[in-house]
Parts: sequence; C-alpha cells; structure tokens
Amino acid sequence: MDFAFHTVAVSGAARAGLLETAHGPVETPTFMPLATTGTVKAMTADAVRETGARIVLGNTYHLMLRPGAERVAAFGGLHRLMDWPGPILTDSGGFQVMSLAKLRTLDRDGVTFQSHLDGSTHRLTPARSVEIQHQLDATISMVLDECTPFPATEEEARRSMELSLRWAARSKEAFRQRPGYGLFGIVQGSVFPELRAASAEALVGIGFDGYAVGGLAVGEGQAAMFAVLDATVPGLPGGAPRYLMGVGTPDDLIGAVQRGIDMFDCVIPTRAGRTARAYTSRGVFNLRNARFADDVGPLDPTCRCPACTRHCCGYLHHLFKAGEMLGPMLLTWHNLTYYHDLMQGLRAAIVAGRLDEHAAALRAGWKTEDAP
Amino acid sequence: MDFAFHTVAVSGAARAGLLETAHGPVETPTFMPLATTGTVKAMTADAVRETGARIVLGNTYHLMLRPGAERVAAFGGLHRLMDWPGPILTDSGGFQVMSLAKLRTLDRDGVTFQSHLDGSTHRLTPARSVEIQHQLDATISMVLDECTPFPATEEEARRSMELSLRWAARSKEAFRQRPGYGLFGIVQGSVFPELRAASAEALVGIGFDGYAVGGLAVGEGQAAMFAVLDATVPGLPGGAPRYLMGVGTPDDLIGAVQRGIDMFDCVIPTRAGRTARAYTSRGVFNLRNARFADDVGPLDPTCRCPACTRHCCGYLHHLFKAGEMLGPMLLTWHNLTYYHDLMQGLRAAIVAGRLDEHAAALRAGWKTEDAP
Repeated sequence: MDFAFHTVAVSGAARAGLLETAHGPVETPTFMPLATTGTVKAMTADAVRETGARIVLGNTYHLMLRPGAERVAAFGGLHRLMDWPGPILTDSGGFQVMSLAKLRTLDRDGVTFQSHLDGSTHRLTPARSVEIQHQLDATISMVLDECTPFPATEEEARRSMELSLRWAARSKEAFRQRPGYGLFGIVQGSVFPELRAASAEALVGIGFDGYAVGGLAVGEGQAAMFAVLDATVPGLPGGAPRYLMGVGTPDDLIGAVQRGIDMFDCVIPTRAGRTARAYTSRGVFNLRNARFADDVGPLDPTCRCPACTRHCCGYLHHLFKAGEMLGPMLLTWHNLTYYHDLMQGLRAAIVAGRLDEHAAALRAGWKTEDAP
Repeated sequence: MDFAFHTVAVSGAARAGLLETAHGPVETPTFMPLATTGTVKAMTADAVRETGARIVLGNTYHLMLRPGAERVAAFGGLHRLMDWPGPILTDSGGFQVMSLAKLRTLDRDGVTFQSHLDGSTHRLTPARSVEIQHQLDATISMVLDECTPFPATEEEARRSMELSLRWAARSKEAFRQRPGYGLFGIVQGSVFPELRAASAEALVGIGFDGYAVGGLAVGEGQAAMFAVLDATVPGLPGGAPRYLMGVGTPDDLIGAVQRGIDMFDCVIPTRAGRTARAYTSRGVFNLRNARFADDVGPLDPTCRCPACTRHCCGYLHHLFKAGEMLGPMLLTWHNLTYYHDLMQGLRAAIVAGRLDEHAAALRAGWKTEDAP
C-alpha cells in the first residue's frame, strides 16, 4: 500500500479526498481526535471508532517521557498498545517542548529541555524526533519545527521559519520510507504572507508526503488565520494532503475547508466534552447550566451519538453536577461525533457542488448567543 | 409478569435460581453493580450490559437529594434516565442517612437529617422511602431499616432490630403492589443468632417478595458474617430470593453462595477499578505497581473483557500513571466482568452438582499474597 492522496471532488479551493495509508483509508476533510498520551481522553478505542473517526493524533513529547518511546516499541507500537489499528499521526514534540517543558535551550541543531513530569533532561533533534515517531510506529510523522511565537516581528519570524526549514530537511533525511507511511512538512512564517509563501516553496522543494500549516491558533484571530491560508495553500501541491495544525472551532474548520485544508486536530471537542461544553447543530451549550436540570429533550435531535439518542439533557446535567465520569465520557463522545459528522457533511457538500450553501446553512443553525 | 423466584438447582444450601421481574429475568446467584447516583461509575449502560450484569442498584438517599425523586419521575423513571431497561433494585436510603448525612435525628417513626450536599433538611419515614422508590420506578424496593451499629450490645441490637421490624411493617403497608415489582424485608440483629432468627421469623410473618440480610460487612469479620448467615438463612423461605447487602470480596461471595445467598451488591469492584486494583482469577493486583510497567501480557488471560482481550498490563499501568480516565473505565469493566463471571461460574457448578470443588479451585487460583 502506497501512501497516497486522491482528490475525489473539488469545490472552489475545497477538496473531497481519500488518504490511503498502511493502516487503512481516511476520507477527507477529516478531524483527528487527540490521543495525546495514547488514549483519547474519556473514550475507549471502540467508542472513538463509533464516532466515525478514522485517524487519531499521538503526542511525541508526552509519549517519549511516559511510557517512553522504547517501551512503546517493545509493546509493538502505539496502534497495538491502544487498540487502534487505524492510522495514527504523531506530532514532532516541538510544540509541547515550548509550551510544557522546563528550562528549554534552543540551538541550531535541536532543543534541550527538562521533563515537566520529573525534571529529567532530554534532547530533541530533527533526527531524534523522527526516530521516536518511528518507534511509536506513527503512520504519519511530522518534521521537527519551531512553532514561531506570536506576535513576532518579520525578522524574528524569518529566522524562526528558516530554522524550521533546516530542521525539515534533516527530518526528511532521517525518515525511513516504508510503504503506506508518510512524513509531512510544516509551513511556518507567522502572519507574513511572503514568509509563508517562501516556506511553502522551500518545503515543496524538499518534497514531503503532505504539508501542514503550523504556527496558527496562537492568538492571531480567525481573520489573520484565514489570510495566512489564502497566502499559503496556493503554493502547496494539489496532489498532497494539507493539514491545519491545532485548529479549531466548527466555524474555523468550515472556513479552512473552504480554503483547501483536508486535515485538522484540536483539543476543543475532547476538552470541551470534559468541561460540560457541547458543540451541536444549534450552537454551543454548557450542560452545567441550570436551565438543563429539567430538560427531558435530547442534546441534539440530529445527532446519532449515545448521549443524544439514549439520554436527555437533564441526565447529562445531573451527571456533571454529581461529578460523575459518565458526563465527560458521553459529552466527549458527542463532541467527537459532531466534529466527525461536520467533516462528512462538508465532504458530501463538496461532492454535491454546494459547499457554500451548506456552510451557510450550518452557520445559520447556530442559534445560541454562545455560538461556536 | 409476576415477580417470581424459581430454584433451578440446589447444592447443599446453595441454589441456582431465576428471578423474574417486570424488567426482565435475572439468573442467580447474581452480583448487582452499584449505580449509586444513576450511573455505574466510569461505565456506559451498554458497557454494564456487556459485563453480563442484568440488575443494578440505585441509591435512594443520593437520588432523592440529586436530581430529586420527583425529577426522576418526571424523566420517566430511573430506567429511562440511565438507559437501563433491566431490573433496578434501590436501597431504602437508611444506610446512607446514617453514614453520610449531617445532624441525624432518629425517632420511632423515621429519621430527620441534613443533606451532605447543601445542608437542607429532609425526612425519611418507611412510607416516604417506599414512595421515593416508587417515584424512581425501582423494580425491587427495600424496606426502611436501621442498620445496627457494630459493635452493639444484645440489648441495643434487640431495640434496633425491633425498630426495623416496625418500619418493615409500615413499609409493607405503603408499598403499591404492581405486577413484576417486589418489596424486600431486611433481617437485622447484629451478630446475635437468636435476634437474627427472631427478625427473620417476624419478617416472614409480614410477608415479602424477598429477604435481605443487612447490618453485615460493618467490621464483624468474615467468620462472624458467615455465622450470621448460618443462623439466618434456615429461617427464610426457600421460594424467595435472599440478598446479602453490601458484601463483598470474591471469597465472601463464594462462602455466602455456599450458605444460600442469591443476590449481592458491593462497592468493591467499581471502587477498586477506579483505584487500579484488579480482581482476577490469579488474585488481586494493583496496576500502579512498577512491575507492570513493561508487562506485555494480559491482566487475566481467562477474562473476556476489553481490558484483558485488547490491551496489555503495561498499557493499564501507563493509563493509571498518566491519570487517564480510561484506566478506571477499563478496570471497572474488568472487575465487573470478573464478578459477573464468578457468579455465573458458581451457578454452573451448582447445576453440575460440584460447587464445593469449584469453590476450592477458584480459591486455589488466587496465587498472590494480596489474595482477594
């Protein structure tokens, strides 16, 4: 099985695609639930499959520290460990080193840091990051990059982007090609269109199996994010998948799909599910709100998940008030189902040639003040 | 459908039975998982069904305070609220009033107490307890009783037992008979054989659909508990189910089945599952123990649950070390499966006429120092 991406239909810049991997196919656009430490929080692997998700995201930084990449390899890889035979994408660890680790020292060749768990010292280089992802048996590995802080001056953003390019080339050298496995480059350049275009061009010159847009959802706002996509996507090859890292709300995802993005990951649906926030066809609701205490109706009458088909809002409210684990379990299940069905709905609309009407109808459905 | 209990086979004092209820049949001996606040902690209702459990236990004290009995009734009852169409037994609330509530005042007619949640004042009488259980739509209701403190003098135990008998009669008067629903009496009398026998005789005189043995597992020890069963069970009618409340370890359950008990509930398998303790055919293990960090083998090779068939011990260890909810979820699933299969194995041995050999083989399998 080759690692391959086929475009099934297009609608403007948007594509309906099929990603083929060593661990099975993925229809795009797709949302990848976070399985940070080797589990989608509050979900069994079977439950994740039932949401419709076909690819999940593991976290190199967390897994290298605990249980350890060598240990995951000894267990037969992350797929086997977490009972997820489907595709797994792993990030490079660079983002978490910058956001979680203590005493970071960045140099031209990599980054040295102390674990946030026990203070032990570790080093990530492009080659080591790719090796760890190999040990985890990642279907899709990511190059090590520096997620440029925001805001940054153009000069800071250029230096950071050029460092990431150097690391991208080294990551490519270190990556061991295997049938159905892939390595993605990451476009950087902050909010500067010329830097983004230059980053994309250079990465395409190196040649990757897919291209991610990184360094966004760091405070720049949706308009700036969309402007970066407009400046970046045209420079990426049509035959490779495009992945917008760490994004976002349903509204963000719709706009990004309209701009040609195929893959997403974000903490929102899982974290929101654990904190009683539900994403629905009618908007965002906080199930802790007292108005749900006596609500005998379903959370989202259009949803096929167990929280919506088996229970009423009053029960979900009760579970969160009582501090019961089943609240986070059911609401995570719901939010991931909503995100998956949102992506599948966009895909169907692209195929049907009516993406913009579908997007407008989705947005019109969000009735709450607390819109997604 | 009448509420009925049929004995399928006997082996000494032990019985293999079938309980028929308005919400479906239950094979006995059976273990009832706790669904204290309207959820078996860390489990979806589907997962509970997959363990094999056919009857769960709801808690009157917790549910009357939150979400409230009237609210549960408005939701269509506890079965509908928690998506559990099968039988539900509810306790009377008396035990939790004594162990959890603040400022309790016991009188001849009932108990007045303050909620441990918000300090609000409530009163439970035999009639009110039975009414609440009716509002919850309990398949099996329990009489309000006083769980005699341990230790107690014979005179204290007699006074307490006689109060419980008076309340049992009032509970019976208040109970609304409906096809397939039942009310159980509760034998008290502490560790005094004559009091236990007198309590049983008086309760049988009032007449109930089943008989529970209460006031045990409060510190008296297994030998004293078994002695109470030996003094009590012969006074209970063979045609009614017998329920040992709040018990216990696998070893307790085996001994109690050998003494003629049909039904059990206990916090052990669910609470242990949340704290990394696994009950298995080889004994009890704490999955946090470092010796499991590199263990690629299954927790219990004889077990059919997802924790054992889909994952290795090293993964379970990792989940608990990382504080992931999936650890409690999987280990609760495992422990409930172990308890269910333990009961089903005892039932099959009773039918096959080899209960004592089977019990000895189970006990011989527990190899760890930390035996269950």
